[in-house]
Amino acid sequence: MKHYYSYENFQKDTRELIQRVQSVKAGAIVAIARGGLTLAHCMAEGLAIRDLQSIRTELYDGEHKREGLSLFGACDLSHVKSVLVVDDIADSGETLQYVMEYLQKKFPDVVFTSCTLFYKKSSCFEPNFWVNEADAWIEFFWEKDFVSP
Amino acid sequence: MKHYYSYENFQKDTRELIQRVQSVKAGAIVAIARGGLTLAHCMAEGLAIRDLQSIRTELYDGEHKREGLSLFGACDLSHVKSVLVVDDIADSGETLQYVMEYLQKKFPDVVFTSCTLFYKKSSCFEPNFWVNEADAWIEFFWEKDFVSP
Repeated sequence: MKHYYSYENFQKDTRELIQRVQSVKAGAIVAIARGGLTLAHCMAEGLAIRDLQSIRTELYDGEHKREGLSLFGACDLSHVKSVLVVDDIADSGETLQYVMEYLQKKFPDVVFTSCTLFYKKSSCFEPNFWVNEADAWIEFFWEKDFVSP
Repeated sequence: MKHYYSYENFQKDTRELIQRVQSVKAGAIVAIARGGLTLAHCMAEGLAIRDLQSIRTELYDGEHKREGLSLFGACDLSHVKSVLVVDDIADSGETLQYVMEYLQKKFPDVVFTSCTLFYKKSSCFEPNFWVNEADAWIEFFWEKDFVSP
């Protein structure tokens, strides 16, 4: 079952997520591309955070998922104390877990906080902040609204 | 005079921009953060381009300084032939001009094509593709819809 997630729902939930992460006092945001980019952009505007960087993961075909994840994009976070890591959904959770471990290892003095719009109970990683539990396949508006019919 | 630019208008214009840049056959997208991120994300989905990277500019101080603009974020584009550089608006045009010159110098064998939703006639740089001429201050939905009243 596919559940279409509209811009209107996104706006409401993102405002909610912004309220919840205020306490983190993040100095920078790392968006996980592609899925986390629009959310990270809108959160950065709502939180007035100018430092928005991105990181990208890809799955290797035909290998085990965990070993098959590669990470692209170099973040520079040496100047900040608290960083928000943003993705749209914790589905399997492997991407977020991998990115969080990678960033924490690379910047041991930085506090990283993860957040998503959706979280699946079957995910191996629970973000520090999430808004909705996903029990269906979420079709985000950015995946649907720009593809030619 | 401020002109509010809604998600509905964005959706229409972005679909138009996606049609126009099809011929470029880009293998990767570079988004100029923060302004170009949501547009770049939606274009990447519409064009089915997985490789989406970002670059960030700031006024004054930093490493690659020119006319008070500094650039942050390392792109890896050595593996692609054609790259789309995406920003929301060519206003003064200095950011886009600087980023295009920087990327072309760093990756001399890559063809870079720039695109924006808005273009101001007073801009020092005209993107290869743009949809609307801006004659007022554009307030993008991502700048307005997530700020607490």
